[in-house]
Amino acid sequence: MSGLFITLEGLEGSGKTTQQKYIVDELRDKGFDVLLTREPGATRLGKRIRELLLDPEWSEMTPRAEILLFAADRAQHVEEVVKPALKAGKIVISDRYFDSNLAYQGYGRGLDIEIVKKINLWAVDYLKPDLTFFLDLPVEVGLARARAQTVDKLGDRLEREELKFYQQIRDGYLKLAEESERFRVIDANRSIKEVKVDILQVIEEMI
Amino acid sequence: MSGLFITLEGLEGSGKTTQQKYIVDELRDKGFDVLLTREPGATRLGKRIRELLLDPEWSEMTPRAEILLFAADRAQHVEEVVKPALKAGKIVISDRYFDSNLAYQGYGRGLDIEIVKKINLWAVDYLKPDLTFFLDLPVEVGLARARAQTVDKLGDRLEREELKFYQQIRDGYLKLAEESERFRVIDANRSIKEVKVDILQVIEEMI
Repeated sequence: MSGLFITLEGLEGSGKTTQQKYIVDELRDKGFDVLLTREPGATRLGKRIRELLLDPEWSEMTPRAEILLFAADRAQHVEEVVKPALKAGKIVISDRYFDSNLAYQGYGRGLDIEIVKKINLWAVDYLKPDLTFFLDLPVEVGLARARAQTVDKLGDRLEREELKFYQQIRDGYLKLAEESERFRVIDANRSIKEVKVDILQVIEEMI
Repeated sequence: MSGLFITLEGLEGSGKTTQQKYIVDELRDKGFDVLLTREPGATRLGKRIRELLLDPEWSEMTPRAEILLFAADRAQHVEEVVKPALKAGKIVISDRYFDSNLAYQGYGRGLDIEIVKKINLWAVDYLKPDLTFFLDLPVEVGLARARAQTVDKLGDRLEREELKFYQQIRDGYLKLAEESERFRVIDANRSIKEVKVDILQVIEEMI
């Protein structure tokens, strides 16, 4: 693989979506070939899986079924989108990757993290990111931001969970970051510009 | 769990569907409380997953995504249908269970069988059947039977695979049967009545 694989992780309201646009624009301006993608739902099959995952109608979905559906989406995403782009030498930036599953379903729902890791690594044929940004901020701040954005819609199933759940997810991300050198924890409780400058600096050092 | 969990396995054309009706009728006539179920697609969520799995439109589906979708269906099935019925003391008969995934996707597609086993056992929270019937017959006979039944339809994606693939699946099932005491290999290349008598005798001995 000759490209560079970067993933963005963070809780609702962490500014992932805002940041990724800036980063992609900036890297493209500098002449890099960048592919922006996301999970779940980047492929034709993934869009159908995403509908099941984010629709509040499926309240009976078991935690194991949820993890396996995310992993199925991811398996398709890697094979169909990520690997071909990396082989073509592109910078691939993915809004969420398997760390989301580990943090949300593993740590958040309290399932056995080791088997969730094994399933996810197998799902992606052991393709790890070169660089993972965790946009970190206090859970209350993130949820307040996310709610301000979604005040006029129902909110999806995942967003209706509670504060304690989100705290476990944040702690999970921080644990994952400690265990792995590919992680950079970015303080996202600052201005958009400050966060952007930090992220771009790390990427440019790596390139 | 106070009930009895029986699974039926076999290739296309093995007579699973015909047999299960006879078995259920016979056991109900004797006063047993029997639940007949199947994979994939026994739950509301599972029906949606089944659409993705059996529609020939999804030709780009990767083998890993396929396994994970089957496992997601199965996780939901066990939690929502199988476990409650077993707890209520019922005889649960499932048309296919995780051995199908091991035989078709593990042995058939040549993926690492150990990790496919791990994923499946985790998906079902380690619930193994008490008794598994493998309705065995030569691959050519089964395919000829299956094709006679589906001559006027397109045939689903899985049925369009080749003879070699089916031979690997049959060999896989026979390997699984050797490794586990819960398996009974039934010669399905006989009359419906002979097969039925065999199966019922085993079940009645177990009860």
